Amino acid sequence: MRKISKRANIGNNARIGEFVIIHDDVTIGDDAIIESFCELGYSNGREAGPLFVGDGAHIRSHSVLYLGSSIGDHLRVGHHAAIRENSKIGNGFQLGTSSIVMGECSIGEYVKTGSQVEIGQRSRLGNFIWLFLNSMLLNDPRPPSAIIVGPDIGDFAVIGAGSAIFPGVRVGEGSLVGAGCILSTDVPAGQIAVGNPPKLIGSVTRLSMPDGTPAYPWRYRFQAGYPQDIVEHWLHESANLQSD
Amino acid sequence: MRKISKRANIGNNARIGEFVIIHDDVTIGDDAIIESFCELGYSNGREAGPLFVGDGAHIRSHSVLYLGSSIGDHLRVGHHAAIRENSKIGNGFQLGTSSIVMGECSIGEYVKTGSQVEIGQRSRLGNFIWLFLNSMLLNDPRPPSAIIVGPDIGDFAVIGAGSAIFPGVRVGEGSLVGAGCILSTDVPAGQIAVGNPPKLIGSVTRLSMPDGTPAYPWRYRFQAGYPQDIVEHWLHESANLQSD
Amino acid sequence: MRKISKRANIGNNARIGEFVIIHDDVTIGDDAIIESFCELGYSNGREAGPLFVGDGAHIRSHSVLYLGSSIGDHLRVGHHAAIRENSKIGNGFQLGTSSIVMGECSIGEYVKTGSQVEIGQRSRLGNFIWLFLNSMLLNDPRPPSAIIVGPDIGDFAVIGAGSAIFPGVRVGEGSLVGAGCILSTDVPAGQIAVGNPPKLIGSVTRLSMPDGTPAYPWRYRFQAGYPQDIVEHWLHESANLQSD
Repeated sequence: MRKISKRANIGNNARIGEFVIIHDDVTIGDDAIIESFCELGYSNGREAGPLFVGDGAHIRSHSVLYLGSSIGDHLRVGHHAAIRENSKIGNGFQLGTSSIVMGECSIGEYVKTGSQVEIGQRSRLGNFIWLFLNSMLLNDPRPPSAIIVGPDIGDFAVIGAGSAIFPGVRVGEGSLVGAGCILSTDVPAGQIAVGNPPKLIGSVTRLSMPDGTPAYPWRYRFQAGYPQDIVEHWLHESANLQSD
Repeated sequence: MRKISKRANIGNNARIGEFVIIHDDVTIGDDAIIESFCELGYSNGREAGPLFVGDGAHIRSHSVLYLGSSIGDHLRVGHHAAIRENSKIGNGFQLGTSSIVMGECSIGEYVKTGSQVEIGQRSRLGNFIWLFLNSMLLNDPRPPSAIIVGPDIGDFAVIGAGSAIFPGVRVGEGSLVGAGCILSTDVPAGQIAVGNPPKLIGSVTRLSMPDGTPAYPWRYRFQAGYPQDIVEHWLHESANLQSD
Repeated sequence: MRKISKRANIGNNARIGEFVIIHDDVTIGDDAIIESFCELGYSNGREAGPLFVGDGAHIRSHSVLYLGSSIGDHLRVGHHAAIRENSKIGNGFQLGTSSIVMGECSIGEYVKTGSQVEIGQRSRLGNFIWLFLNSMLLNDPRPPSAIIVGPDIGDFAVIGAGSAIFPGVRVGEGSLVGAGCILSTDVPAGQIAVGNPPKLIGSVTRLSMPDGTPAYPWRYRFQAGYPQDIVEHWLHESANLQSD
C-alpha cells in the first residue's frame, strides 16, 4: 500500500517499497529504488520549490526527503535518514543511516557519509569528501543565535568519526580531521588535526599504508565506488607525480 | 490508512498523516499535527498512566511517544524521535530529529534540543535550556548499575554539541558547556566549561557577539520562538540591567 | 495491515504490530514480539543466507533486520535500530534505540548497548559486554580504505558513552573505557582508559560504590537481566574470591 501523488513525477523502471508516501512536486529520475516507510516531498513550509532527484537513486527505508532540494544522480541514502529543504547536492551523494542534512547546504560531487552524521544548515562542502560516523558540522557560533554560518570543507577532506567542526571553520583540501577532534580552528590544506583542544600534527603525507606506501592523498590508492572517468583522472595524476 | 483507538482523545482541528498508530489512553489537545509513521501511546508495561499532550503539538514523522508522560502545549518533535514513559515536560518543549527522552525525566518550560540528543532517565532540567546536537545526559555513575541519577541542568543553560554531562552533575543557571566537553564535575552559574578533561575557563560574560555586544545571557539578545509575555519580561530585565 | 511472506517461518505465539514487513527466508522462534513499522529480512544483495532469530525476540518499532545474520534467543531491539548482514550474535543481545550493527560482526552472549551506538563492520565482541550511549566501534585505519579491521572487545568490558574504539584496538577483559575516550591504543585486562588522547589511569579495582564496596568486576554486584544459571556462577565466583 502506497500514497503516491499524481503530481509526483517518477522516472522509468522505479522500484517502490510498501507504505511509501510521495507528495506533490517531487521529480525523481529513472531507475530509482525507494524503500518502505519513506516519505518524499515533505513540506515544512520553508522550502523554496520542488524536490528534484536525478537518475539511479536508492533511498533506504524510513527516510525523509523534504521539498526544496535539488540532488544529482546516483543518490544513496541509508535507513532513518533525513535531507531537509533548499540544499543543492551533486552527483553520487551518499548519506549514511540515521544521518541528517539540515538544509540550505551546498554539497559538491561524490560526498559520502557514515551513519549518525549531521551536516548542519548552511554547510558548504566541496567534492569527494568523507564524513565518518557521528561527525558533526556545526553552525551557530554563539548558541543560541540567529547567526548561522556553516563550516567550509575542501575537496578530498576526511572528517573522522565523532568529530565536530565548528561554525565557519575551513578544512583545507585533502586534510584529515581525526576521530573525536573538536575542531574550533581552520586547518590548512593537506594537514592533520586531532584532539580536544585541536592540534595540527603535520602533513597527511606522514601517514602510510601497512605496506609502507603513502596513505594520502587517498585518491591515488582508493577508487572503489567512483566513476571510471574520475578514477582515470586520479590515476593519471598519480602517475605524473611519480614520474616527476 | 490509520489505526486510531476509539479510546484515544484527540482535540479539535487535528491533522493526522498516513500510517499513524494512536493507542488507548492518549489525550492530545487541539490543533495537533501528527505526521506519518508515528506511534503514540506506546506501552512498555512500565508506564504509570496515560499519555497527555497539550494544545498545538507538532510531531514529525516516524516518532514514538510512550504512555505515562505528561507534556505541555506547543510540543515540537522532529523525525525518528522517541519520548519514553513517566516524564513530566513543560510547555514549548522542542525535541530534535533522532533525539530521545529516556523517561522518568523532569523537564521545565521551553527546553529545546538539536538532533541526536539523549536525555537520560531521571534527568532534571529547568527552563529555557538548550541541548545541542548529539549532547548526552548520562545517569549511571558505575556502569552498569542500578544507581540511576540524572544530571541537574539549570535555567538558561546551553549544552554544546557532542558534550556529555555525567550522572548527578549540576550545570548552573546560564552556564555554557562547550562542544565536546566531557563534563564530570559541577559548573557554577554563569560559567563556561570546555574540554576533556573539563576545565572551567571563566564567566560567560567574556563572550561577545560579532558587533562587540555581550553574547550572554543569551535571552537579552535572542528571543525568537518564545511567547510574547516571556520576551517582554526578558527585555525589561535587560533594560533594567543597562540602567543600573 | 502487514506484508508477511509465506516463505517466512515465524514460531508460535508471535505478536506482530501494524505495518510490518517480513520478507522471504526469515526464521523467527517462538514468543516473538515484532512491533509496528519494522522490516525483517531486508536484502542488500550482500547477505550470505537467511535471517535466523531465536526464541523470545522483542523488536521495537521502526527497526530493520537484514538477511544473512544469525541471532540467539531473547534478542531485544530498540526503536529505529538496524542489524545488517552476516553477523553471528549470541543469546540475550540487546541493541538500543537508533543503534546499528553494521554487519559481518561476531558478538558473544548477553552483549547490551545503549542508544545511538554503532558496532562497525567486522567488530569482534566477547560476552557480557556493555556499550553505552553513542559509543562507536571503528574499523578503517586509513579512511577511506578497503582495510576493514574491527576492534576486539573482551568479556565484561564496559565501553563508555560517546567513546570511540579505533580499528583493531583490543579492549581487555573487564576493562572500562571512560565516556568520551578516543581510544587509539590497546587496553590490558582490568584497566581504565579515559581521555582524548587516551590515558590508562589504573585498575578498575580503584573504583568503589557509594557504600565503599568494590565497583568492579561489576558482575559481582549487578546481575539484573541475566539468566539464573549465569548469575549463580558469578555469585559463586565472588564468594570464592572473598574466602581466599
